[in-house]
Amino acid sequence: MATVVSLDGKRKVPSLEPLLSLCADDMAQVDREILARMRSPVALIPELANHLVGAGGKRMRPLLTVAAARLCGYASAADRHIKLATCVEFIHSATLLHDDVVDVSALRRGRPSANSVWGDKASVLVGDFLFTRAFELMVDVGSLDILAVMSRASSTIAEGEVLQLTSQRDTSTPEATYLEVIKAKTAKLFAAATEVGAMVAGRNGPERVALESFGLNLGIAFQLVDDALDYSGREAQLGKTVGDDFREGKITLPVILAFLRGRTVEREFWKRTIEKLEQRTGDLEQAQTLIDRHGALADTLERARHYGAMARDALGLFPDKPLKAALLEAVDFAIDRAH
Amino acid sequence: MATVVSLDGKRKVPSLEPLLSLCADDMAQVDREILARMRSPVALIPELANHLVGAGGKRMRPLLTVAAARLCGYASAADRHIKLATCVEFIHSATLLHDDVVDVSALRRGRPSANSVWGDKASVLVGDFLFTRAFELMVDVGSLDILAVMSRASSTIAEGEVLQLTSQRDTSTPEATYLEVIKAKTAKLFAAATEVGAMVAGRNGPERVALESFGLNLGIAFQLVDDALDYSGREAQLGKTVGDDFREGKITLPVILAFLRGRTVEREFWKRTIEKLEQRTGDLEQAQTLIDRHGALADTLERARHYGAMARDALGLFPDKPLKAALLEAVDFAIDRAH
Repeated sequence: MATVVSLDGKRKVPSLEPLLSLCADDMAQVDREILARMRSPVALIPELANHLVGAGGKRMRPLLTVAAARLCGYASAADRHIKLATCVEFIHSATLLHDDVVDVSALRRGRPSANSVWGDKASVLVGDFLFTRAFELMVDVGSLDILAVMSRASSTIAEGEVLQLTSQRDTSTPEATYLEVIKAKTAKLFAAATEVGAMVAGRNGPERVALESFGLNLGIAFQLVDDALDYSGREAQLGKTVGDDFREGKITLPVILAFLRGRTVEREFWKRTIEKLEQRTGDLEQAQTLIDRHGALADTLERARHYGAMARDALGLFPDKPLKAALLEAVDFAIDRAH
Repeated sequence: MATVVSLDGKRKVPSLEPLLSLCADDMAQVDREILARMRSPVALIPELANHLVGAGGKRMRPLLTVAAARLCGYASAADRHIKLATCVEFIHSATLLHDDVVDVSALRRGRPSANSVWGDKASVLVGDFLFTRAFELMVDVGSLDILAVMSRASSTIAEGEVLQLTSQRDTSTPEATYLEVIKAKTAKLFAAATEVGAMVAGRNGPERVALESFGLNLGIAFQLVDDALDYSGREAQLGKTVGDDFREGKITLPVILAFLRGRTVEREFWKRTIEKLEQRTGDLEQAQTLIDRHGALADTLERARHYGAMARDALGLFPDKPLKAALLEAVDFAIDRAH
């Protein structure tokens, strides 16, 4: 990983702070827009949506949209980038609501998930609502080109979710299929978030291509690290319970690598715990041991660094300025979370 | 109800056939477009989608879109009206998939529902996919005005679904709230289907307003009759089980009227069966008796005729031609199903 050196020459831990601070005004506007667009005479909608959206996620995706727009020189007093950022957050939130129903998750960002509080039905329908609101926001922005990017991304995400469902709990899932899933369900929205940032600033040439690539690779790295953290992270840091993926029988790269590199008896362990979901006390620890034995966690992070490096290089064509440095640091932050 | 008199002077039972026959070429194209747009390398998607979309619904909504476009003189060889009709059917299908999950329905159009075959998770995610495909189709059509109408309609539908969920099983739901729900969750899509038909034909003046009103009122009448049929219809005719709404504790106009007009002991019956869902053998028959005693079914159909009449009158500004006559007959058909 690249080492970030601050102005006074000392090494420091990479952080999202510089990016958040440079985009603070825009993000305050995004917060207001989010609240305004969640309004509905049907009280359950803002109530449930606020539980999720107000739960203080990192707002990473909308942050990327406004940052990309500003990096491309979007200086207008208009609020099209704010609307797009809000739209991106709504698509993300709708996906989370449906994900938690599909995964039967009880926790989200360290709090009870919406489905565990209001039930699956409400989560499905409010997810649908947020999704349609996202489209209304896009239409408001008024660019058919941007609509094409966002609607394509949404459809890829939905396709990725179904692909994940069908490959669920299959320990022989190839790494390539896993990569396809995380590209579709995570990285594509990162890519769209940064790509439309360039587009709204009128940069439809190399900047748009570069920012799309930046988002895509950052998204892949981000998800790889997330999947690694599920076997290694501290709960407070994650906002979710360590071992969630394991308990749900979710196929992620650490498992795929440990399975591929494991002996017959180990493969039987994975089949029992992940495919048949027959789990006993001590199984999570055993899974961590096997993953560790085969260097599967270290290599998952190595893969993440590979995509992180591509994300960093994608920004090469932009002149050096604080916002670019902050975006590069965000890549390091996404990977460094695992340490 | 208006009486349809055929050319040879004999009375006849109103039918959807004339409309289907006048739009047969367009509808064949819609069928092909539906199949093409359901394609995905993720096999579960076309498999599940085909179970629902291929189940031979009446395709009432896309039919209305192509008919409205043709009524407005859309004569182009282009296929924008086909894409819009497909988009309307996809939004409808996505809603059905999520509805069946929320209502825990085992049957849809007389066949096992998708959720009962592939599970709730797949239905939620494939519903999401169809919904995003609908947006891609709209974007393809390339009109921001049409996108605004369709995205607003989608968001109203989603809001209506949540409203229905929160008023579910509350026997004191006012008729006004019920009307709001069916306007939002059913009639709004009918309205959008016919409105965008006018728009794609370039008729943005009075024809657009007239067709929106036609669709909205037809949609309300259609849902009122559907709700009446649930207490009176023959199963084969309905493609669903009589008494479904009752068993799910769904609040519809027959129940609202019977409750409002009922004595204390009757209200207690409704509270036990609908609110508490404590149902015993003979309760459905008792519900039918109470509904009948208070003329609640007849009055539900009377309300439907009221909206049907408004739908018919909305077409007044169009010159008489076979397509207009077929649309008027479709209104009568929607109401006459109950006989």
